[in-house]
Amino acid sequence: MCTENPVLSRRTALLGSAGLAATTALTVAGAAPASATDRAKPRHGRHGRLDLTYVLGENFPAYTPGEEAVRSPGTTIEADGYYLQRWNIYEHTGTHVDAPAHFNPNGRYATELSVDELTVPAVVVDIADRAQDDPDTVVTVADLRQHERRYGRIDAGSAVLMYSGWGEKVGDPDAYRGTDSAGGLHFPGFGVDACEWLLRRRQIRSLGVDTLSIDPGNSATFATHKVLNGAERYGIENVANLVRLPPRGATLTVGLIPFLEGSGGPARLLAAW
Amino acid sequence: MCTENPVLSRRTALLGSAGLAATTALTVAGAAPASATDRAKPRHGRHGRLDLTYVLGENFPAYTPGEEAVRSPGTTIEADGYYLQRWNIYEHTGTHVDAPAHFNPNGRYATELSVDELTVPAVVVDIADRAQDDPDTVVTVADLRQHERRYGRIDAGSAVLMYSGWGEKVGDPDAYRGTDSAGGLHFPGFGVDACEWLLRRRQIRSLGVDTLSIDPGNSATFATHKVLNGAERYGIENVANLVRLPPRGATLTVGLIPFLEGSGGPARLLAAW
Repeated sequence: MCTENPVLSRRTALLGSAGLAATTALTVAGAAPASATDRAKPRHGRHGRLDLTYVLGENFPAYTPGEEAVRSPGTTIEADGYYLQRWNIYEHTGTHVDAPAHFNPNGRYATELSVDELTVPAVVVDIADRAQDDPDTVVTVADLRQHERRYGRIDAGSAVLMYSGWGEKVGDPDAYRGTDSAGGLHFPGFGVDACEWLLRRRQIRSLGVDTLSIDPGNSATFATHKVLNGAERYGIENVANLVRLPPRGATLTVGLIPFLEGSGGPARLLAAW
Repeated sequence: MCTENPVLSRRTALLGSAGLAATTALTVAGAAPASATDRAKPRHGRHGRLDLTYVLGENFPAYTPGEEAVRSPGTTIEADGYYLQRWNIYEHTGTHVDAPAHFNPNGRYATELSVDELTVPAVVVDIADRAQDDPDTVVTVADLRQHERRYGRIDAGSAVLMYSGWGEKVGDPDAYRGTDSAGGLHFPGFGVDACEWLLRRRQIRSLGVDTLSIDPGNSATFATHKVLNGAERYGIENVANLVRLPPRGATLTVGLIPFLEGSGGPARLLAAW
């Protein structure tokens, strides 16, 4: 088991040994931004478990400013005997899934993705060095071929996850969106050629990114979304902690909330290898 | 793999063989209530995957009427190029987790439950026959001892799940709440003695129920919640499809959404054995 823990629990002492060995959800929205760990040197051992999910709070960057999660007080233990909160969220908030219906008028809803589709081999394609110099870079077919030369063929049914290092910026919404002076967005994503290649040649199940969108920020056409969702495949956005996931060999469980007629929704992403 | 599928996808033909073998989220809220499958004869083979999550919609019964999920239109592909919805939800809506902070003033938030705590052996205790005659019945220590005589000792770290057959009623909120003429609630839960026994003698991780609350509906004290959350353990409520889960041997992944300072939250529950 991986024993790294990016955010120590405030009550770690109350946990048993299993709890002590675990990696918790990354904290964003203030106190402990993910930047401290997101570019740390990989230390994945032979076996591990990892949380690829960001904490979902009001300060988590939205693709469209103004569409952040809204939190309201509910009850308190002092006044009511129990504590709860209320949330007003778009389906595409925080670490989340784009179901086929998001861009495909005939596409399946979040409720229609099967258990087997949500339990998939994970492959991490690292373009972080290039992304540091060029926020508009994309994952290319050449990147995928290079990955395969080094780590072996990408299995059918995989989720292919882009690691661009963009998680460093998640505590600063403008930096994470890469907003320019004209309001344009700049962050890495998957090129549509790479998406098509993975669908046709490798029969993948999903694409995931450590940015706000599987298309690069400067896309005006959402071509990768359209091709992926058009093929009844789902995307995963705002994936945390990819620097800690092995390049291949992990199994990803996509804990997608099945909202009625959902275009997608928040998801808990848990990996094990 | 289990090939039972309680709710066939409207686009099943588009899935690969992996998709065809899967069990999708149960539908509630009108069209296809879970009742058709929730009391079906168990048919779990040696290996299987199962979704224990209800579809989260406006019609899903709330413990407190008026606290149902609220859905708002977002965008449409026709008008905007992409489809999404917006949801206003309490943290304790649909299939969800009660984090320790729900009833324990010093308890951990949803974000503080570790990956290892969310990946647990599952044990199903069946009290459905008794619950059919007595909606106020609870899981007792005697039930647990009887379960162990038949299936073996409950492992440390387990999630112990009550199957009462209550899912049959989920399409009818009044029946699911068991509302009486005075507004009281009646549905099964865990007795506080059984909870204490499982914590002390078996070092369990979690309790789960196929009803609205781990305490029985007629509880005025929430004793089981207080003991469980007081011990830094979490509850799981509105668990679907338990009739299909083996009495022991499955691993449950609790895909809890990590809301900031969450008292709990919606969770995707996926089981494999």
